[in-house]
Amino acid sequence: MRDLDTLRGEIDRVNRQMLALLTERLSLCAEVAEYKRAHGLPVYVPEREEAILNWAASAAGETFAPYAREYFQALMDLSKEYERETGAQSV
Amino acid sequence: MRDLDTLRGEIDRVNRQMLALLTERLSLCAEVAEYKRAHGLPVYVPEREEAILNWAASAAGETFAPYAREYFQALMDLSKEYERETGAQSV
Repeated sequence: MRDLDTLRGEIDRVNRQMLALLTERLSLCAEVAEYKRAHGLPVYVPEREEAILNWAASAAGETFAPYAREYFQALMDLSKEYERETGAQSV
Repeated sequence: MRDLDTLRGEIDRVNRQMLALLTERLSLCAEVAEYKRAHGLPVYVPEREEAILNWAASAAGETFAPYAREYFQALMDLSKEYERETGAQSV
């Protein structure tokens, strides 16, 4: 069994990687929203969201499936919130 | 401006990396919970949680700070849910 400091060090490393990916994803989603607004496309596409949730649950495997789904739902809600903010700022 | 397919491809790549980190983090948190139970330590440490939220908000920079905080709160709630499940299964 690994000790607590080692495990926390591992979690901190994962946290740093996750934070970098979060900000990258938020930026990408803002870029998508900007593209859609510029081309008169609907910003929210429920089918794309559902496809991501299904992919996540399937790719995560049985044990992690419900958590993966919940995680990506939270992530996409956050992205939409950020897109709205960004959109509001750019008007 | 990059086109929609390119941007979505980038988001899919980020999603795959995030999913891998999510399952790694859940496994690490379950290991931490197991260690704590084995050593009679409290599983939930609000100070550690608060420290992670403050680090995330600070490391994310001003624009992303509120999203980073919300994201890590959701992530830690999910981890606790998984730890409880894992703990229940191992009793």
